[in-house]
Amino acid sequence: MNSELAVVLVSGGMDSCVTAAIANSQYEMAFLHLNYAQRTEKRELQAFQAIADYYRVQQRLVVNLDHLKYIGGSSLTDRNIQVPKADIHRKEIPTSYVPFRNANLLSIAVSWGEVIRAKKIFIGAVEEDSSGYPDCRKEFYQAFNKVIDLGTKPDTDIEIIAPIIDLAKFQIVKKGIELNAPLHLTWSCYQREDLACGECDSCVLRLRGFDYAGEADPIPYAKKVSFR
Amino acid sequence: MNSELAVVLVSGGMDSCVTAAIANSQYEMAFLHLNYAQRTEKRELQAFQAIADYYRVQQRLVVNLDHLKYIGGSSLTDRNIQVPKADIHRKEIPTSYVPFRNANLLSIAVSWGEVIRAKKIFIGAVEEDSSGYPDCRKEFYQAFNKVIDLGTKPDTDIEIIAPIIDLAKFQIVKKGIELNAPLHLTWSCYQREDLACGECDSCVLRLRGFDYAGEADPIPYAKKVSFR
Repeated sequence: MNSELAVVLVSGGMDSCVTAAIANSQYEMAFLHLNYAQRTEKRELQAFQAIADYYRVQQRLVVNLDHLKYIGGSSLTDRNIQVPKADIHRKEIPTSYVPFRNANLLSIAVSWGEVIRAKKIFIGAVEEDSSGYPDCRKEFYQAFNKVIDLGTKPDTDIEIIAPIIDLAKFQIVKKGIELNAPLHLTWSCYQREDLACGECDSCVLRLRGFDYAGEADPIPYAKKVSFR
Repeated sequence: MNSELAVVLVSGGMDSCVTAAIANSQYEMAFLHLNYAQRTEKRELQAFQAIADYYRVQQRLVVNLDHLKYIGGSSLTDRNIQVPKADIHRKEIPTSYVPFRNANLLSIAVSWGEVIRAKKIFIGAVEEDSSGYPDCRKEFYQAFNKVIDLGTKPDTDIEIIAPIIDLAKFQIVKKGIELNAPLHLTWSCYQREDLACGECDSCVLRLRGFDYAGEADPIPYAKKVSFR
């Protein structure tokens, strides 16, 4: 077994869970979770801990980024902006975009990674079959790797890996099942914490992914649409 | 007067104060300050508010980054690592380096800047006459500008400006005096909050700057060395 250490950003959703399953096959994992006062903060944290338990991860760091709520500008953190109903064909960037969120997450991951001597940062960003957030694009991560290279100590060697960035949701589902990822422990809904709403972008993209993969989504929904 | 908005990162030290004085001549300013549980957190925050009052800045954001303390790895945030005595000719990166700190600061500045529609982020980084932190180099900021370009909305147009990056400390002192920057309100010491210690890197670089500029440093020191 390779004992190199990787920091894995685990939101508690399906994408980060499958990303952890991929990292797990090659690295010792340290899990990082960020609360940013999003609507489903508690439910996501619960999912994070459950996935970390599943993989017996020892090093866990949970960071509160309350300033992202104060800064606002997103329906995920500002109660005055409604979470939009899914429109997975829309062209503009949805209101659920949290301004420059992923740079905040990655910066923390690199700070931590530099101290615990990690070699990789795994992030479950998805470009193709996504909501179109600008900070989920491959070029963004390439540029960030350059910033890491220039902004850390010479003997620090950390690289961001986004292993599912080119996959469609149904491929992510299949990859997760193939690797025995604990998809039943994950939470993706932007809006509710008891049952997934089935109506926000995140739910609809996820449900469509399971449908196209010919698999059943193991988590409970308030409303479930079929795509086939 | 140009009414474009700039976010200015103001630690409360001399460099950020002079940077604010430069930004003030061209932009409406919003001030951002970060507490990261560094030893002199309270004193720096006090300096921040005093400088913000001096410039009558309306929009102020103070963010607590407690995770940088938890992550540790620096003598500024970890009480178990001693703040080194000044050695401004040392080659290696000093223990006061906070891992990837400036990327954390800039990410928050950009998140805020994107919401309040700022056009510039001013940061008082100094490359030449500095402690040799990797995240204070010009290339680092150039690379970060690329990340901003790729990671924000298409209609967001934010650029990092580091206006004193090429200046020596004595030039920063002169520039500050020329622009009537309130240097008497600033705090640079890494170690003490009552009197500046006069012994840490930050104090020694500052004192040497005033000395070479032929000016008197208006803040009180416990110990003051002359360089001429």
